[in-house]
Amino acid sequence: MNTAMIRAAAKRLQGHARHTPLLSSRFLDEIAGRRLYVKPECLQHTGSFKYRGARAAVSALGERARARGLIAYSSGNHAQGVALAARDFGISAVIVMPSDSPALKVANTRALGAEVVFYDRDRESREEIGARIAAERGFTLIKPYDNPQVIAGQGMVGLEIAADLPEAEGSVLVPCGGGGLTSGIALALAAEAPGLRVRPVEPEGFDDVARSLASGRIEHNSGPTTGALCDAIITPAPGELTFPIMQRLCGPGLAVSEEEALRAMALAFERLKIVAEPGGAVALAAALFHGDKLAGDAVVAVISGGNVDAPLFARALAEHGGESAHADG
Amino acid sequence: MNTAMIRAAAKRLQGHARHTPLLSSRFLDEIAGRRLYVKPECLQHTGSFKYRGARAAVSALGERARARGLIAYSSGNHAQGVALAARDFGISAVIVMPSDSPALKVANTRALGAEVVFYDRDRESREEIGARIAAERGFTLIKPYDNPQVIAGQGMVGLEIAADLPEAEGSVLVPCGGGGLTSGIALALAAEAPGLRVRPVEPEGFDDVARSLASGRIEHNSGPTTGALCDAIITPAPGELTFPIMQRLCGPGLAVSEEEALRAMALAFERLKIVAEPGGAVALAAALFHGDKLAGDAVVAVISGGNVDAPLFARALAEHGGESAHADG
Repeated sequence: MNTAMIRAAAKRLQGHARHTPLLSSRFLDEIAGRRLYVKPECLQHTGSFKYRGARAAVSALGERARARGLIAYSSGNHAQGVALAARDFGISAVIVMPSDSPALKVANTRALGAEVVFYDRDRESREEIGARIAAERGFTLIKPYDNPQVIAGQGMVGLEIAADLPEAEGSVLVPCGGGGLTSGIALALAAEAPGLRVRPVEPEGFDDVARSLASGRIEHNSGPTTGALCDAIITPAPGELTFPIMQRLCGPGLAVSEEEALRAMALAFERLKIVAEPGGAVALAAALFHGDKLAGDAVVAVISGGNVDAPLFARALAEHGGESAHADG
Repeated sequence: MNTAMIRAAAKRLQGHARHTPLLSSRFLDEIAGRRLYVKPECLQHTGSFKYRGARAAVSALGERARARGLIAYSSGNHAQGVALAARDFGISAVIVMPSDSPALKVANTRALGAEVVFYDRDRESREEIGARIAAERGFTLIKPYDNPQVIAGQGMVGLEIAADLPEAEGSVLVPCGGGGLTSGIALALAAEAPGLRVRPVEPEGFDDVARSLASGRIEHNSGPTTGALCDAIITPAPGELTFPIMQRLCGPGLAVSEEEALRAMALAFERLKIVAEPGGAVALAAALFHGDKLAGDAVVAVISGGNVDAPLFARALAEHGGESAHADG
């Protein structure tokens, strides 16, 4: 992994992935206690940053391999990113999803043109099913984070932050699951904006990355990793490719509560007029409510995605909306 | 009014007003039946386009007049735009608001540093109160739309659309109250992107601009203009400066129902991950649900603002959320 790969991926993504803006609000600055910039990847195609990495990986394949098709496991944002990248190139995609996936997510993935193959979470291995389909049909597996081209594509987010804030000094807070986005941004900033240091942010109770960074080796989340409010960014452990990058370049991890994530969603609604999913809001929550753990005059919070169901979003507003007035300065 | 004024205003606003992105979703394209671009002015500072015109007007004042302070009548988006523009320059602003204004809007305006002066809607004239304060304190009145510099500032939205879609042919749909945003965009596009024609969009029952364009003279809304869901964009009649510009440059007006505005809000949430207020969503509603009245392969819908209370937003989601799946292609 090197920054030349990130620049090459960004070039391939130009005109396809959106350069998302940096948003800000003086009301949020006051809460955060410093200048706060928000990078809303919820405004990216498919509603999350995952499209960048998926398209970067697909566009890096040889033409013959690509033409055969793609396979991915995911019921969420990565599935949609791979499905859209496949549609961009007019190729087939199979997404392996749990048979108990919400109907809406299945419909969504199909609407993007992908074929959905179900597996039974309790009795089957998605890896085995995926490997069989990949072998039978010659499809290329696009892993969600432990793939150099995926990391390079996510790194484009870091290049955009560096281009928009070349002089800033402070922290860049990134919602962190397997670490693809976090390590990609860290690589880009190390080269382009060394005054900005990446800090991974996770939900409390699923802070495998923070614990791994503290202990110096890959730590796992204990117990089931599904069902939590921030499930979109929960993975069993940091990736084998992403962890060494984070270890080399990132500051200590941060963890926020589910309630803090919901409060951040309500404030993003009120002050920035954007929709964040709970997992996507953890870095904003850390910037707003854990400022005492940060250094520097500026902080960038990445919102990684906005794919949240209406009832859950309405719940965040009902529980935490109107805690402050609603214009943005 | 000419396009040189718009370019000059845009130059003064550079680095202050955000160049908002153009968003799109292939799911929305399918509903609209053509390529749909959304210009989200809800992402502008203060949550609406009004900051552009307010700052353009304030920055055009002579230094001595500006230093004395500003006055505006408004309980909504214009109030916040003027308050923020005044704060930018470190000057005083008085906002004349009805005494029954929602506490949140009052708190908001005050939080931006403005002084709020109340008047009794039934017994007092805001014009008289405003004129008295302006005379006593030497403050400059910033009208919400019938002011050439305000129109020039709103025209910056048109310059951005032209820069981002130089070759497009089709309609640009604009939520229309007094016509400041509509006429400013129309002037900019006539010079910079003549393939794009502006169409004003209003709420059904408050279509004074559409009727005025049809009859060739300024028509008024009958009856009370407050209390409607789309109140942010309801004015008694088109402006004296804005109407001749719209008459010269705009196509026929369109009107949408309140339910269509709520449906558009829910689709903007699901597909674009942005927050639109009901009045701000009328142009998107027209693009989605009245495509039969449009010409051309492309349509741009401006979302004029996103200052909506959490309960009303939750209502839009409850009534119309999940009508389609929620990823964006």
